[in-house]
Amino acid sequence: MADASNDPVWSWPEERWRAMIGRVRAGRPLKPKKWKGGARAAMALSFNLTGEIGAVAGGGGITALSEGHYGARRGLHRLMGLLKQQAIPATVFVPAVAAILYVEEIKAILAGGHELGLHGWIGEESLALSAEAERDLVSGARDALEKIAGLKPVGIRAPGWSFSDNSAAVARGLGLLYDSSLMADDEPYDLTAGGEATGLIEIPVSRQRDDSTFFAPGSGAPAAPEAVFDIFRRELEMAYEEGGLFQLTLHPHLVGVRSRIWIVEELLKIARTLPGLWCATHADVALWCKGRAGG
Amino acid sequence: MADASNDPVWSWPEERWRAMIGRVRAGRPLKPKKWKGGARAAMALSFNLTGEIGAVAGGGGITALSEGHYGARRGLHRLMGLLKQQAIPATVFVPAVAAILYVEEIKAILAGGHELGLHGWIGEESLALSAEAERDLVSGARDALEKIAGLKPVGIRAPGWSFSDNSAAVARGLGLLYDSSLMADDEPYDLTAGGEATGLIEIPVSRQRDDSTFFAPGSGAPAAPEAVFDIFRRELEMAYEEGGLFQLTLHPHLVGVRSRIWIVEELLKIARTLPGLWCATHADVALWCKGRAGG
Amino acid sequence: MADASNDPVWSWPEERWRAMIGRVRAGRPLKPKKWKGGARAAMALSFNLTGEIGAVAGGGGITALSEGHYGARRGLHRLMGLLKQQAIPATVFVPAVAAILYVEEIKAILAGGHELGLHGWIGEESLALSAEAERDLVSGARDALEKIAGLKPVGIRAPGWSFSDNSAAVARGLGLLYDSSLMADDEPYDLTAGGEATGLIEIPVSRQRDDSTFFAPGSGAPAAPEAVFDIFRRELEMAYEEGGLFQLTLHPHLVGVRSRIWIVEELLKIARTLPGLWCATHADVALWCKGRAGG
Amino acid sequence: MADASNDPVWSWPEERWRAMIGRVRAGRPLKPKKWKGGARAAMALSFNLTGEIGAVAGGGGITALSEGHYGARRGLHRLMGLLKQQAIPATVFVPAVAAILYVEEIKAILAGGHELGLHGWIGEESLALSAEAERDLVSGARDALEKIAGLKPVGIRAPGWSFSDNSAAVARGLGLLYDSSLMADDEPYDLTAGGEATGLIEIPVSRQRDDSTFFAPGSGAPAAPEAVFDIFRRELEMAYEEGGLFQLTLHPHLVGVRSRIWIVEELLKIARTLPGLWCATHADVALWCKGRAGG
Repeated sequence: MADASNDPVWSWPEERWRAMIGRVRAGRPLKPKKWKGGARAAMALSFNLTGEIGAVAGGGGITALSEGHYGARRGLHRLMGLLKQQAIPATVFVPAVAAILYVEEIKAILAGGHELGLHGWIGEESLALSAEAERDLVSGARDALEKIAGLKPVGIRAPGWSFSDNSAAVARGLGLLYDSSLMADDEPYDLTAGGEATGLIEIPVSRQRDDSTFFAPGSGAPAAPEAVFDIFRRELEMAYEEGGLFQLTLHPHLVGVRSRIWIVEELLKIARTLPGLWCATHADVALWCKGRAGG
Repeated sequence: MADASNDPVWSWPEERWRAMIGRVRAGRPLKPKKWKGGARAAMALSFNLTGEIGAVAGGGGITALSEGHYGARRGLHRLMGLLKQQAIPATVFVPAVAAILYVEEIKAILAGGHELGLHGWIGEESLALSAEAERDLVSGARDALEKIAGLKPVGIRAPGWSFSDNSAAVARGLGLLYDSSLMADDEPYDLTAGGEATGLIEIPVSRQRDDSTFFAPGSGAPAAPEAVFDIFRRELEMAYEEGGLFQLTLHPHLVGVRSRIWIVEELLKIARTLPGLWCATHADVALWCKGRAGG
Repeated sequence: MADASNDPVWSWPEERWRAMIGRVRAGRPLKPKKWKGGARAAMALSFNLTGEIGAVAGGGGITALSEGHYGARRGLHRLMGLLKQQAIPATVFVPAVAAILYVEEIKAILAGGHELGLHGWIGEESLALSAEAERDLVSGARDALEKIAGLKPVGIRAPGWSFSDNSAAVARGLGLLYDSSLMADDEPYDLTAGGEATGLIEIPVSRQRDDSTFFAPGSGAPAAPEAVFDIFRRELEMAYEEGGLFQLTLHPHLVGVRSRIWIVEELLKIARTLPGLWCATHADVALWCKGRAGG
Repeated sequence: MADASNDPVWSWPEERWRAMIGRVRAGRPLKPKKWKGGARAAMALSFNLTGEIGAVAGGGGITALSEGHYGARRGLHRLMGLLKQQAIPATVFVPAVAAILYVEEIKAILAGGHELGLHGWIGEESLALSAEAERDLVSGARDALEKIAGLKPVGIRAPGWSFSDNSAAVARGLGLLYDSSLMADDEPYDLTAGGEATGLIEIPVSRQRDDSTFFAPGSGAPAAPEAVFDIFRRELEMAYEEGGLFQLTLHPHLVGVRSRIWIVEELLKIARTLPGLWCATHADVALWCKGRAGG
């Protein structure tokens, strides 16, 4: 929270709400004139591989733990198989604890040519942490991933989208290239803090391009798979039409089940029919956009 | 709240619940025999452009702020482009703070021939305010919009539908022509207070004709875009058949995304095929209906 | 509540949970061999006309009041028009306060050949009332409806399905023929209390045959109208196939809007194509079934 | 709960979260090379028959009790009729109290060749119980079912998926063959505790293959029946394609209504067209898989 006082917002002077909004904000748009290799549009798939850590944070219920296990035991393999079939790379954001639990899976992901991204330590609530505590957890996660993967991640996705006031500085302090947790645009942009460029590139996510919006257990029935396919397809097709980026976030335990995996299969088939669609990792996209703002 | 005592409603005498119901109520129906230019039916589109103010009121989470930013940075431009393509005017209800944040966008809206409507100061909860506090906020908002736009708004939509016991008097005190926050009919009507006409015309909204009913993040999955298009289309077609008004409320950050914007595109195409459909701003409709009750 | 002690249910002796279950329970099935006039199956439509009383009980918010007003001002007329067109009778359950607010509408309902049923006084929570208080409210509601309508209702639907431990005795004490608030079957049945027949016939409702299940505002998006039509159609068709009763509950402010009213129109058209479908009020059905158990 | 201390999970040492995850976990996969009789794939249907016990635990509301009654009075018979028509066996998990309430129905289930499984005593929250209390309730339930059915159940499903730290030991202590409450895989697996095989086989359930995910009353509208059919069909077809197990959980009061029962009818018809699909009870599947891991 930027502000602890209890005055209602409608009593605030302009500088106060301006300051709140300006802490971290989308800056210069980074959509390039052409994508790598002269491509017309780009597709960047990502998976959040969280395994049992959500259930651990939620108190350790055995049924919930088993549901988290499903993602790594079944869902991930289905997803990886489809990517291999179509020779499409992806970025896997993984909390350190899930990486430690699933070392073999992580190695297989890397062997498949995919990118590994940071996703915190164990689902920590960054908003409740001091800058030091957040930095220590992310830094520890970076070390853990490096130890397992033999390389340093260059990107991060805030656990549970809990991008804090310190997250940008923590990411820059670790020399990261990009973040992928915010939603101000469909296209990559410069992340600013207090009006100044942070040097960090944002590869924005969105609720519409995230399977958890439609399938995460909670109140109410999950969405019909046909409707979700339709949404993802439209997002892809309009991104292509605009010459922009189609970014997608998937969760192996949600979309990796038998009645939903076809959504990804059909989507990848459509992607393969679109001439000039560059299929890239989030890091590839961030590197390409860096400094190419406006082409 | 009209009544602070805790007696259960089933112990109330008739005058008490009659008084509660009669504070503000739909009066004389104002559906005209013919719409402007002899048109058979009318269409009045509106957008609520709230930018980051929902996120500010909600505590200033950075991800939420970025989602609000999307509406003004991306969604609004898609919507304005479609309206321009079909030469259809709309009314944009904007809280003062969002107008201050997005001055250039407001100017472009006005240059496009659209109407600007009041939408409170910063998402204040009018139900929790004194009459004076509500009046000061709305009056301040009116001044802010006038300064940016160079003209005085003539209509208001209560922030978050929080139409208070004082809202009608506040609107009349500022000389406004119409309100657009209530739901007692599909057609415009006279707004009464205590059984007396307030002089204010209501351009009613409805849950069915509001994208936030289907797409606002919350518990449960959002609706399928196909289903929402179907609902909006049916509302338009039956309004046309009845010779009435089709009023619609949209939010740039919700319907302005790639997988949903087609809903508006298709709807406008249908509107363009309907002979004798008058496409107007909310102010146009209110002015036409004023004093033409029953034609 | 039948039991105020806090022992967890798994510590209860058999007589205790048996007593709780047996207070009020479905008894002898009353599906007749043939319906009136030798009909093959029966259809009994009902509307709950609550006007503004839900909003009054909910604190009197002006927007909520206006939404309740819509049902009586717009939705009801659309529904009554469709019934007239197809010459199909219905039962309108109305709280006394709504009848007092909408006297002309009630008279028009009766003139149209429809049945008027009790629906409490003003949405009271019967579960929180003493037997005397519940009886006084229902008895007062009966008197109010008799005064307006010139005839005594013979059936009741508990406000908000809050059928209490006293509701059966209250209904019998007023000489009522039937209740329509419970869900133990698709077909009418004898209502028992403590294992003994109460003399009251139950015309059961169900969540699947109630528009509020799909359209009542709350958390999450409302259902797609196409899906609701499909559900109602299947309920009707299978009832017909089984030679049973198709009972339906509608709310004018929910299904009476432009994008949903077609559901009722199409359903009535289908009903009209089914040979030997008896379209009756709830009272007609209860009278026919009384004493005809098993034909 | 495995851990009562309040340290946030991100402060935990590795051994602590490893211990939490390892208490009960999926072990060796038990998908056989071939299913019984050389079958290519297997289908195991289950019903949770809970009658009024959910309503009893929830306070004994009369409307809720009647809704529970519907399952045993109507829904169950529709389901049993479809199974008989297609000669397909199922497993019925029943809490002891529901079995005592519905003795005739239980006998008819057994006469139809179906399996009877344990489902606790009366919806107890196992997570809140001591090991002794849980064992006493399950042991009492086993005795009650044995008395009614004349045979000992060999499998259990935790009431409300509340699989506790003691559930595996309780099940083994009663000599049970399998549990069916967890979700770590689509295929049967060995259940381990602290890394050691418990001797118990898990026949996993899933949210996607459970009608309550889509139809249980709660916040929001229930799913469209067409969408649920589509999901179950895809789960079945992909299980068949993978040569695996299609397990399904249904509730008579949810799927047994007129507008939904067709889902089961159509699904069984499809199952009957798939050559080499072994239709079996959960016990059959567990027995076949036991010791056949990897064929």
